[in-house]
Amino acid sequence: MADLSQNKKDLAHARTKTSFDITDMTNYLYGGVDNVEQRRYIIDLIAREPVFNKDDWGWLNHTDAVKRGIAMSARLAEIKMEHELNDLDFATMVEAIDDTLPILLHNGAFIPVINSQGTDEQIEKWIPLAENYQIIGCYAQTELGHGSNLSRLETTATFVKETDEWEINSTSFTAAKWWIGGLGAMCTHAVVQAKLIIDGTDHGAHVFVVPIRSLEDHKPFPGIQVGDIGPKAYGGFNKMENGFARFDKYRVPRENMLMRFSKVSREGIYTKPPHAKLSYGSMVLLRSVLIRQMALYLSRATTISTRYLTVRRQFNNPTNRNDADLNPGLETQVINYPMVQNRLFPMIAQSYALFAAGSQMMEMYINLMTGLTSGNLDSLAEVHAMSSSLKSYCTTIGAAGAEDCRKLMGGHGYSYFTGLAHMFASIVPSNTYEGDNYVLTQQMARYLLKEVKTARTTPEKVTPFSRYLLLALNRDSFSRTTCSVARPEDWLKPEIQLAAFEHRCARLAMELSDAVEAGGGLESSSSKTWSDHNIECYRVSHAHAQYVLVLWFIQSIRAAQDPESDESRRAQPESIKVLEKLSNLHALHTIQTNLADFAEDAYFSPSQCLSLRAQVKSLVASLADDVVGLVDAFDHPDFLLSSALGASDGDAYKRLWDKAQSEPLNQREVCDGYQEYIRPLLKKHGDIKM
Amino acid sequence: MADLSQNKKDLAHARTKTSFDITDMTNYLYGGVDNVEQRRYIIDLIAREPVFNKDDWGWLNHTDAVKRGIAMSARLAEIKMEHELNDLDFATMVEAIDDTLPILLHNGAFIPVINSQGTDEQIEKWIPLAENYQIIGCYAQTELGHGSNLSRLETTATFVKETDEWEINSTSFTAAKWWIGGLGAMCTHAVVQAKLIIDGTDHGAHVFVVPIRSLEDHKPFPGIQVGDIGPKAYGGFNKMENGFARFDKYRVPRENMLMRFSKVSREGIYTKPPHAKLSYGSMVLLRSVLIRQMALYLSRATTISTRYLTVRRQFNNPTNRNDADLNPGLETQVINYPMVQNRLFPMIAQSYALFAAGSQMMEMYINLMTGLTSGNLDSLAEVHAMSSSLKSYCTTIGAAGAEDCRKLMGGHGYSYFTGLAHMFASIVPSNTYEGDNYVLTQQMARYLLKEVKTARTTPEKVTPFSRYLLLALNRDSFSRTTCSVARPEDWLKPEIQLAAFEHRCARLAMELSDAVEAGGGLESSSSKTWSDHNIECYRVSHAHAQYVLVLWFIQSIRAAQDPESDESRRAQPESIKVLEKLSNLHALHTIQTNLADFAEDAYFSPSQCLSLRAQVKSLVASLADDVVGLVDAFDHPDFLLSSALGASDGDAYKRLWDKAQSEPLNQREVCDGYQEYIRPLLKKHGDIKM
Repeated sequence: MADLSQNKKDLAHARTKTSFDITDMTNYLYGGVDNVEQRRYIIDLIAREPVFNKDDWGWLNHTDAVKRGIAMSARLAEIKMEHELNDLDFATMVEAIDDTLPILLHNGAFIPVINSQGTDEQIEKWIPLAENYQIIGCYAQTELGHGSNLSRLETTATFVKETDEWEINSTSFTAAKWWIGGLGAMCTHAVVQAKLIIDGTDHGAHVFVVPIRSLEDHKPFPGIQVGDIGPKAYGGFNKMENGFARFDKYRVPRENMLMRFSKVSREGIYTKPPHAKLSYGSMVLLRSVLIRQMALYLSRATTISTRYLTVRRQFNNPTNRNDADLNPGLETQVINYPMVQNRLFPMIAQSYALFAAGSQMMEMYINLMTGLTSGNLDSLAEVHAMSSSLKSYCTTIGAAGAEDCRKLMGGHGYSYFTGLAHMFASIVPSNTYEGDNYVLTQQMARYLLKEVKTARTTPEKVTPFSRYLLLALNRDSFSRTTCSVARPEDWLKPEIQLAAFEHRCARLAMELSDAVEAGGGLESSSSKTWSDHNIECYRVSHAHAQYVLVLWFIQSIRAAQDPESDESRRAQPESIKVLEKLSNLHALHTIQTNLADFAEDAYFSPSQCLSLRAQVKSLVASLADDVVGLVDAFDHPDFLLSSALGASDGDAYKRLWDKAQSEPLNQREVCDGYQEYIRPLLKKHGDIKM
Repeated sequence: MADLSQNKKDLAHARTKTSFDITDMTNYLYGGVDNVEQRRYIIDLIAREPVFNKDDWGWLNHTDAVKRGIAMSARLAEIKMEHELNDLDFATMVEAIDDTLPILLHNGAFIPVINSQGTDEQIEKWIPLAENYQIIGCYAQTELGHGSNLSRLETTATFVKETDEWEINSTSFTAAKWWIGGLGAMCTHAVVQAKLIIDGTDHGAHVFVVPIRSLEDHKPFPGIQVGDIGPKAYGGFNKMENGFARFDKYRVPRENMLMRFSKVSREGIYTKPPHAKLSYGSMVLLRSVLIRQMALYLSRATTISTRYLTVRRQFNNPTNRNDADLNPGLETQVINYPMVQNRLFPMIAQSYALFAAGSQMMEMYINLMTGLTSGNLDSLAEVHAMSSSLKSYCTTIGAAGAEDCRKLMGGHGYSYFTGLAHMFASIVPSNTYEGDNYVLTQQMARYLLKEVKTARTTPEKVTPFSRYLLLALNRDSFSRTTCSVARPEDWLKPEIQLAAFEHRCARLAMELSDAVEAGGGLESSSSKTWSDHNIECYRVSHAHAQYVLVLWFIQSIRAAQDPESDESRRAQPESIKVLEKLSNLHALHTIQTNLADFAEDAYFSPSQCLSLRAQVKSLVASLADDVVGLVDAFDHPDFLLSSALGASDGDAYKRLWDKAQSEPLNQREVCDGYQEYIRPLLKKHGDIKM
């Protein structure tokens, strides 16, 4: 018979088996003890505030949730001001709050856009007001009829010379702004993307600061119809009001156009911006941040799943490795089943790989921006392609992983109280926003096609991450290349793993290049030809992203044991040993999941395919004693996890029970609707006596 | 500039390109015109009732949703009685309602369990009351601590000889019944699974009819603590109250044990059931029904996605094949992008394959039951394995497909108003209930291992669906077998497709058999050994399911053109032509998705892999003019789709706008929370004058 405290015992016992120091691992993940402590401090700041309590989230409807979101937004703004927190700490607060709020685009887009596209005078005018939350802004780009295709936006801003104003107008039904976070209820201002028109000439999309609601009574100004677009999939973004707006020849002053790059004079003379691609930096940043976010999300999902599956027992089974020293009469811990381990542990390895990738990508971004500031645009194309490719791949595995962690938890996994359903609903739109994950892969493919040309003409100029293309310059010898694995343990050599990824990327890139050239080449090709290649773009871009993730994880571990490295990046030998297992598992499991790409050109032999699968199984098994420690090292406190099943004490059943008892439906003995519906049905054929 | 009615024009225009008669295709899908008309009649019956209106579902919280669910349940019961509807029509009503209701387990489990496990007297006592809804029942098996492992349930029913009663008891915290649909609020009775104990001897789980709530005031009886377990993932099962119950030595009369098979006499003498596996029939039924449901779900998802992507336009693109005869100034219909087609069209093909499989599986079930009635258990093992294997695979692709259809719709796909989010939330638990999709694959694997033995000893006794095992009896020649595709068009031959699937299944089954034998054989092997093979069980079971789906779809098309076939299964030559394309696409796309399984043993050569991918692309392109007609043929009315973006008139933007306007948040000019939260924040630093 199950013992109430068995859950707790099981998790505590599993922790004793950890082979490494958890604190050391946490420091490695977050880049040093200072970062770890600051993150804890900030999360605790949020956890102490009643408005951020998550206990009733499961039964708020959209209307109530938005009201809560507004309350949370106001408090978030106050805390930021009270503690004078920087952007990084603000991001950690948002992580701790764990929901999208109407105010997020104020800090995430409104302020950054004014800062980057406003003149010094405009910055001086708007930014202090925004920093003090005397105005609350949002960013209005997407329309009912247009999202990806910026150049076809239908909102216009027409210059009215007589009054020195812009007339903002929704020129058609589909011109309505749509999906704008914060516009539906909370914001007072919006930065609006609209086509700039002077004397009938369309100069393309530009940005304008547009007052939306009165600062006195919050009523929308005449000429603006504004509201909420309704609930979102899976209850996601529930506390965010995503708004719509229609402008009816609404006037704003000329100086409300942000004029750092393009300008319009009092006379209506338009001046073009000097560089078209300078705005790429902010896209790179948003995508880089998403990679880091996926590390945080997937690590939370695996934490919850690992802990619950450690305390959940089902069926007697002699596999009871971890149980042998406990009560042998107990059923097997579900986490001991190889099928479960082979689904779950690779996701733990992915989480670690994503942590490494998040740091590397951010470093790349910072180097890019340092370069841009000094006029160096050399790495812009590569970094932009890399962030696009990684965003697509990482958010794909992040969302899929959160859902698979939930499914791994079996029946109870379908309860809202896992915490994972809310998480999935928050992650999955990232597969679509900041560039649809399929469309986005074209960026890396275009970049690689240019690199193929460079490889053929000036191979020394190929950038490090696409140097693999040089392997395939001699197509004959390349097509005869095979994997050098002779014995199973060869799979554990990083250089063999990387060689396999490089071979695959090179082959796919060359095949794409051949196909494009057969269609007349990249420059001369029509869009028709290009869109016919998009399936192959997707393949090669994800192949490249996987290669980079494997590479960066390997490099991060090398740095962690390099005495030359900064202390904050280093780890103890016991940690290194487990990290190497994780890196091997991550690399080989990624290969296994995409095995056709490695086997279809006979780079792998049939026997190598078999030994690869065996090696993955064996790596998975070797991690069994460490997984609870590995997820503890992610350092996600219970407040953040908000999960009855994944709390740090392991008391899953008790917490699940308690959560159910607190539900509004259970506060009355006889349900609402009994008199109205149930009783008439039961009594339709008269009374019975049982 | 987009024209308001362009959406409608686009969809209407796409319809004109259909190459076949839609009515003929619909009749093929549903097995004849009578079935089509009956389904329409029933759906219309539901659509006309205000209580089933779906317009406000997106903003109901769980408490309000349950109340609505109770109202809907009562009306559903009344309609069933008023119109004297049979089980099939009841299922169609539930399809039309499109949500899980507290009353569903009354008809879906309570009544069937009593009918199958009750004695004639018990049936006579309980069934009329249940049929008249004078009592409302549910089925209480799962507990907080046990789901899959029935034998370890902790609820006990102890015989009390003195009073001729059972004492039902929750013997521990984890013994609480959990997840029981209808138990939380609506039901008056439950069929409870509990361990039968007489004089301290445990006779295992048996079923008992247990009164839960008073028929007079609906209050739970003393000794029973009952309530709702809380909201579910993604807002799924929102109108269903899934209940918990704890029994504190609660007494019911001896005759409330269902005694058709096992019996307990007045003296407390226990009699065992004659056959252990007779209850498999109902599991087979539930799983077979799920396959049919997946056809209905995935066809709805593809309907919504296909229609919206036909009217959504984004970017100018010379690919404008379908647009060339329209206004060339318009942007490209998103459905014209090859990447979109290559994701969407294979799911349309899958939907058609699932329709065929749903019918075949149901036929298999009916034949099984006919056999069982006459004492023939021959096909029980095969049909049970088949239904398990197909349930696992079909519900996996059903849930994944619904979500991919949603993602295909880009930004607007994340709106609740697509109708797809609600659908995913309803489908995805099917990956877990009626047997977890991973665990369940062991059934087919066990069955195939037995068939391998049969193949080796008495090959003539191998059943038709596993005859492929005979291919691999001579392992040497088998391992040298390669695919016979020489020219690209060879891929379109059904026999070549089936040969590839058979080769793959045979190889995986034999490898599994070798591994099991290396571990000491199936009978002698410990569970440890078995659970170490579960990854391979999953692979071989899904491979088998894919083979059967491909086979049944091919057979269904052959039957449709066979003059000997029943009229209800036939189709016109124009329909056959498109069905053959769909079947080819389904087979080849399934191969492509699992290409490693076909390439890793060199059954496919590198050039065959390349030509396969090319053939899939070409099949996809060939369906472009027919997809709108193909989804129209699914015959899902707008009421059922409940989608702003997928309605039959194509007026997506208008409907999305209208839905947003109806939302509660938009019924007031200034949002709730302004005075309390927003104004104090804005005024914190004093008034400003803009």
